[in-house]
Amino acid sequence: MPRGRTDKVLTTRYDGGELTRSPDELIVEEPLEIRLDDHLVATTMRTPGADFELAAGLCFTDGLLGDATVRTCRYCGTGSALDTGFNVVSVDTGGRAPMPTPRLGTTTSSCGLCGSTSIDELCERLDALEPAPFALDVLAGVPERMLDRQGLFAATGSVHAAAAFDVGGEPLVVREDVGRHNAVDKVIGRLLLDYRLPATDLGLFVSGRASFEIVQKAWAAGFSTVVAVSAPTSLAVDTARRAGMLLAGFARSGRLNVYAPDRLS
Amino acid sequence: MPRGRTDKVLTTRYDGGELTRSPDELIVEEPLEIRLDDHLVATTMRTPGADFELAAGLCFTDGLLGDATVRTCRYCGTGSALDTGFNVVSVDTGGRAPMPTPRLGTTTSSCGLCGSTSIDELCERLDALEPAPFALDVLAGVPERMLDRQGLFAATGSVHAAAAFDVGGEPLVVREDVGRHNAVDKVIGRLLLDYRLPATDLGLFVSGRASFEIVQKAWAAGFSTVVAVSAPTSLAVDTARRAGMLLAGFARSGRLNVYAPDRLS
Repeated sequence: MPRGRTDKVLTTRYDGGELTRSPDELIVEEPLEIRLDDHLVATTMRTPGADFELAAGLCFTDGLLGDATVRTCRYCGTGSALDTGFNVVSVDTGGRAPMPTPRLGTTTSSCGLCGSTSIDELCERLDALEPAPFALDVLAGVPERMLDRQGLFAATGSVHAAAAFDVGGEPLVVREDVGRHNAVDKVIGRLLLDYRLPATDLGLFVSGRASFEIVQKAWAAGFSTVVAVSAPTSLAVDTARRAGMLLAGFARSGRLNVYAPDRLS
Repeated sequence: MPRGRTDKVLTTRYDGGELTRSPDELIVEEPLEIRLDDHLVATTMRTPGADFELAAGLCFTDGLLGDATVRTCRYCGTGSALDTGFNVVSVDTGGRAPMPTPRLGTTTSSCGLCGSTSIDELCERLDALEPAPFALDVLAGVPERMLDRQGLFAATGSVHAAAAFDVGGEPLVVREDVGRHNAVDKVIGRLLLDYRLPATDLGLFVSGRASFEIVQKAWAAGFSTVVAVSAPTSLAVDTARRAGMLLAGFARSGRLNVYAPDRLS
């Protein structure tokens, strides 16, 4: 089994007066090596749990699967530089996934460029989305419905959530992770493993900002609607408009801002 | 010149009643390709500005410079897949930096593993830090001093800040970026280009969480003290304790929690 998702750490508290010591619950962050047909394709810092979903989801959203389907996911410690077999996941397509190409340089920082050398190339790879079936009052209500589903956030105050929700705004798949992009990949990986992609009838919720990579991953999975609690970046808005996606931000207290499309009809 | 750091986007606002349209100021996010002695070493999504600092800082914190010093940084569009020459920076050491090695797979997600194949290896690469000279009341006061220095956050509500501060808690170098790690690399890059590393007499402030990568970058630059406004991860705490670093989190309203060292003497 993977290790726990939170960890208690004895902490010294300073409030201007006496120092006191008490345990604090922190989110766990560990590296995960992801292999596709036995080739290392990614290393990501993540919160343990739903590792198969993360591995399958990342391979999918990065465009590494091509037309192949995932046959199995398994933990695999052999030959790894990491210190536990539960920090390596092998995704197997029976060799049907395209051979990953070695490249110089790291693609850091949740950059979403993985698998593409340019944003235009990404836009060429993915088809335009169909219009979203969601009512704005439903979208504005999703953050409230998520509140009691974010258990790790309640415990630690420092973790991101993502969810796939239905046309009524009900969250169907909820995942939390120290990395925003990981939470999204876990949700998408779950849908992939359940043969529920493309997610044309579902919306994607993210608890933080909507960066380019979030929009890119949502687009890859076929979500026509993305709701973020915080702001989008300008590139996320440009990309969502090119994708034909409805992108809402600052969804709080029954309000939200619609950044894409440019104009609601 | 690089493009602007914020962008105005016409936005549709929904508050349960009428839809209204007005401009919203968003943070700009664009890819930056970083080349070291003409080899592509990283691509990161960043907010334009302080690109030379980011490029030099990232090369340094990733351990790519070895014993080499940075001679020049310049914008360089030739041969790039990106659409503007201002999204490619070349860092030049006159060929003195170690040759980067090609590797399979991307290191995503602000993972901080760049340049190391394991965390233990990272710990072996860096020396233990000297004890920090900072008083806790000074550290607890840093977030308040930062408030009027975070102009992009005030404008957009969605950007991270990092700062190097002196023993009196005064922020000396402040940088904001859509990526937390980029803000840190920009601060460290500035200090590097000013020949002010290792930063043994300075503290590092970060506006968000303290992940492993933040601690790793701070350690690489010689910061013995890191103050975060939000929580650290368990791995960040483990790493800070191994580094001999003082790591404080939840620094707000004159309070903070000390996560490392394990016990204040």
